[in-house]
Amino acid sequence: MSRFEKSTIMLKIAVLGTGTVGDTVGSKLIELGHSVMMGSRTANNEKALAFVSKHKERASAGTFKDAANYGEMIFNCTSGAGSLAALEMAGAENLNRKVIVDIANSLDFSNGMPPSLLYCNTSSLGEEIQKAYPMAMVVKTLNTMWCGVMVNPEMINDGDHNVFMSGNDGDAKNHVKEILKSFGWKESNIIDLGDIKTARGTEMYLPLWLSIYGSEKMGAFNIKVIK
Amino acid sequence: MSRFEKSTIMLKIAVLGTGTVGDTVGSKLIELGHSVMMGSRTANNEKALAFVSKHKERASAGTFKDAANYGEMIFNCTSGAGSLAALEMAGAENLNRKVIVDIANSLDFSNGMPPSLLYCNTSSLGEEIQKAYPMAMVVKTLNTMWCGVMVNPEMINDGDHNVFMSGNDGDAKNHVKEILKSFGWKESNIIDLGDIKTARGTEMYLPLWLSIYGSEKMGAFNIKVIK
Repeated sequence: MSRFEKSTIMLKIAVLGTGTVGDTVGSKLIELGHSVMMGSRTANNEKALAFVSKHKERASAGTFKDAANYGEMIFNCTSGAGSLAALEMAGAENLNRKVIVDIANSLDFSNGMPPSLLYCNTSSLGEEIQKAYPMAMVVKTLNTMWCGVMVNPEMINDGDHNVFMSGNDGDAKNHVKEILKSFGWKESNIIDLGDIKTARGTEMYLPLWLSIYGSEKMGAFNIKVIK
Repeated sequence: MSRFEKSTIMLKIAVLGTGTVGDTVGSKLIELGHSVMMGSRTANNEKALAFVSKHKERASAGTFKDAANYGEMIFNCTSGAGSLAALEMAGAENLNRKVIVDIANSLDFSNGMPPSLLYCNTSSLGEEIQKAYPMAMVVKTLNTMWCGVMVNPEMINDGDHNVFMSGNDGDAKNHVKEILKSFGWKESNIIDLGDIKTARGTEMYLPLWLSIYGSEKMGAFNIKVIK
């Protein structure tokens, strides 16, 4: 039996990060019936308070530590350059034995366009998080698309396109797969690439995503593996 | 008018590299009516001679320098780790003012699996070649798939999937587009990503390609941008 038998019931979820990704993913989780605490550096972050007042029910806000302590599952929706610092503030004691769904990309715009990646080629953000919290179960997923598509795959091509998953723990990936299915992803379109090292692939896809975005001039696209 | 008005007629083409990619691409070019000289380190490379005897007509072999001197267009089918050395042997005087179709990936297997990329994140092989030969017109393309699919896109999904192009010279890209169309690529499936810097995107996609390859256990796949 899976260690995560709660997958079919409602969870208490920490969403770390108050940007568009955190707001979009957190709102979808609340819509699905979960309870969400949005975490940020401070307990009274304006965007987190706006998120709470928008939802009224089952939404709360706190520090990264408050949210991680509250969550049975953690969504890392911080910007990738700040993810490790945010998780450090959350505290290992609040992350251990929990699934961390890592959807961040370590884009670095400090050297101009195109952005580079902070972790790349011989590592990845997903691997760095797993290395920093060996007692947590990191699942890298959803990082290959615009957040609107993450939570509403049916908005393009009747949902027929792919999402990838990387992680060392099979039970954790199955648990996340249930969440993805509840977002609208067809099981046959969820591709398990293997262990967390394969997060390099989905993270290093970002420059291509950005070029396609530049050529399509909109974010509502995704890729499908054709065979 | 394009500087490459020869695009609809038969060309003399240099294929640098004697591996499976060079053989597959060179054979397709001969089948289409072009003449191909396969270039390698030595004039009497066994695989190049086998290529010549397989085709009898319009196929020849020589050194990298012989082939580049012969070709009106250059296909870089060497392994990415050896491309710059091969082009140096070809000689700038034989590359200047020519289109270099760069389909190589700088995969480095020396540190085990997964392989890393020699040029990555802040540069790409395509950019390095363009930088080394500013008088040549580098077009990065076809490097996101197995060579069987490159020359026969119709083998999967009736050819309905994408190939990308990166390069600084619009005429050169149009010229290469005609070649791609003759391979069977539908014009609407050829995505021009922009200048040669966008080659970072298609080259950095390789680790994801390798993971999908590992999960699909075959090379006859490609990606399609869904919108």
